[in-house]
Amino acid sequence: MHNLIIKNAAQVVTCSGFEGKRGREMNNLGVIENGTVIVTGGIISHVMQQGEPLPVNEADYKVIDATGKALLPGFVDPHTHFVFGGYREEEFAWRMRGDSYMEIMERGGGIVNTTRATRTATEEELVDSARKRLDAMLRLGITTVEGKSGYGLDRETELKQLRVMHQLNDLHPIDIVSTYMGAHAVPEEWKGREDAFIDFQIAEMLPLVAGQRLAEAADIFCEKGVFTIDQSQRYLQAAASLGLKPKMHADEIIPLGGAELAAELHCLSADHLLQASDEGISALAASDTVATLLPLTAFSLREPYARARTMIDAGCIVALATDLNPGSSFTASVPLLFALACIYMQLTPEEAVTAFTLNSAAALGRADRIGSIDPGKQGDLLLLQFPSYKFLPYHVGMNIVERVIKKGEVVV
Amino acid sequence: MHNLIIKNAAQVVTCSGFEGKRGREMNNLGVIENGTVIVTGGIISHVMQQGEPLPVNEADYKVIDATGKALLPGFVDPHTHFVFGGYREEEFAWRMRGDSYMEIMERGGGIVNTTRATRTATEEELVDSARKRLDAMLRLGITTVEGKSGYGLDRETELKQLRVMHQLNDLHPIDIVSTYMGAHAVPEEWKGREDAFIDFQIAEMLPLVAGQRLAEAADIFCEKGVFTIDQSQRYLQAAASLGLKPKMHADEIIPLGGAELAAELHCLSADHLLQASDEGISALAASDTVATLLPLTAFSLREPYARARTMIDAGCIVALATDLNPGSSFTASVPLLFALACIYMQLTPEEAVTAFTLNSAAALGRADRIGSIDPGKQGDLLLLQFPSYKFLPYHVGMNIVERVIKKGEVVV
Repeated sequence: MHNLIIKNAAQVVTCSGFEGKRGREMNNLGVIENGTVIVTGGIISHVMQQGEPLPVNEADYKVIDATGKALLPGFVDPHTHFVFGGYREEEFAWRMRGDSYMEIMERGGGIVNTTRATRTATEEELVDSARKRLDAMLRLGITTVEGKSGYGLDRETELKQLRVMHQLNDLHPIDIVSTYMGAHAVPEEWKGREDAFIDFQIAEMLPLVAGQRLAEAADIFCEKGVFTIDQSQRYLQAAASLGLKPKMHADEIIPLGGAELAAELHCLSADHLLQASDEGISALAASDTVATLLPLTAFSLREPYARARTMIDAGCIVALATDLNPGSSFTASVPLLFALACIYMQLTPEEAVTAFTLNSAAALGRADRIGSIDPGKQGDLLLLQFPSYKFLPYHVGMNIVERVIKKGEVVV
Repeated sequence: MHNLIIKNAAQVVTCSGFEGKRGREMNNLGVIENGTVIVTGGIISHVMQQGEPLPVNEADYKVIDATGKALLPGFVDPHTHFVFGGYREEEFAWRMRGDSYMEIMERGGGIVNTTRATRTATEEELVDSARKRLDAMLRLGITTVEGKSGYGLDRETELKQLRVMHQLNDLHPIDIVSTYMGAHAVPEEWKGREDAFIDFQIAEMLPLVAGQRLAEAADIFCEKGVFTIDQSQRYLQAAASLGLKPKMHADEIIPLGGAELAAELHCLSADHLLQASDEGISALAASDTVATLLPLTAFSLREPYARARTMIDAGCIVALATDLNPGSSFTASVPLLFALACIYMQLTPEEAVTAFTLNSAAALGRADRIGSIDPGKQGDLLLLQFPSYKFLPYHVGMNIVERVIKKGEVVV
């Protein structure tokens, strides 16, 4: 059933819209004070001002009194690697004390460590550990999450990761958007034969993933020393021709022109962008490609943050994501994400909210279904302990999500 | 009753000791693998290696199987201002966008805002809002917290704040250590008459607080434009002569010599220390005064962090605290505290754990009773979701505390 009335919310922060918001438009949250929201059969049916009479029979609905609390759309996390085997807590301490990447690799650290553990893990083990991560994300208000493969880097393990996400999408309240990322790194066995590896992806892996409907999108790590602009273009064009929506890890370490390529290929999103050039930012601003920023990774690696202010002022559609992964950013801390966005990237609280709801939905091609409180959208909502969304960055690093509602059902 | 056996913990992180640890000694956590801890009548009675036979009758105890989980002493937060009226979420957004302190003051922001709201609030309102903050702290693993008055700055409100803490100490599982901080700021009505204000503190307030046993410690904001070294010395010496343990807000904004004064006066702790001079650090290293660092405040204000590495290498007893308050640091995020300490202040994970357990207990004069897992100490413990304390900084910003035990009773 899942009929729900949430009444008298101090603020209904609608984030109203059916596509990503661009530039300063991100400040427009469409807040309704003392508003009421009705979810009927899992779908938002009414968004009401104070004083409007109830258009439904209250007896058919569960009712929550939200007096003194702000109501928001569920958060959408559009970039994570949440399915993986093993942990790298030792490596974290080594990295913090300044050990070099090479020293860490020699001791068995780095992505190779995760690849080995992910290859070894059974499907059940991966479901089990990933489910716990989803539980934590749900408590933080995330109701839709993207997850990438890319820790297998071989046929079997890549498909295994995607199957795990498929299973979890059925098992867990969080909606999972699966992205195939066979081109996450160059596997040992293909070192020096990157073009042939991309050929293998195009000839075998992408058709296999698309044929089995195991993913909605395809992603590649376009970076110096990983995959070139040319290789990325070939991979993503092949993916698109098979119906997989293209996404890119772009301009994280050096300005390689990833942002420009993403715009040219009409990618759903270009992600990271710490080193995106002025030209890259202009190209994104002139396109519908979402600029997805990952400040938790920059924080964890002590890197500079992406130029969010420049991007917004240029008119980009900016989204935020956690980048949860076992290496560079083992965190899904939504509160820290808001703190970093507002304290260290100079987003306004309003821009940060848009970036993690409507715009992050757009980064997944789902802004028509989720990411705002509009009639017709999925009943994914969250209630804060406080009367305003402004407490999200202000209560620094603290989880202030009190209840989470998924398709009209209270799940936290 | 409160008899509890926690068996087979992947790690018992004892932090063993009965006084603060100094310098590199902070790395010694005394970890026991697959250990068992017994709490009898609320007090830790046994700390056992793997394989030792149980020295008590299991039937008289509640038993927790801690396989795969790390057991730590409860966290001790030695510097907060958790009792206050009102919130300043608007001001946070103004500050982030770069509005000047004067502009914010003119709009009614700053400490004056909190002082007004705290004076207006009833004792019940203050108990109610502070209790919610304590609930959040407890879920993060904090089992003892220091709280300061200092948002009244008049006789009645200062006493009210201390009474609220006294009540909460009875009502809430967290132990509360009350600190009188009538000299937190110069109140409007005393501007320009700071010496007379200190005279008033010494003649009336300190004897009143000590006489009513409303606080264990006294604190003062020693800073350019607030209270001088001379005023701080007079205030703290008077406090000490009345049995109130001296503490100081020292060298936060400019190097005024606060660290040196704290060492000279045998203060329990000198807090903040962002600008402590080399001489100040040497003085602390040669003393028993704990250097209490507050990285969440520096993070929230975009300030540089205190020179933790220098202090530890010099042999200081370094502690960490949240500084929870409604203005500069509205956060009790223990996970973010660990992340900042290890990623941005170059503490090892081991040093960070010591700094927020045994050494923070020392900063409250309670290292003989709490802050480690040693027979004879209070049964304040916490169990992590993961097998190692190394996940505390590694799972960046995420609360990984699964259970909290207070005096042998499971409270979370």
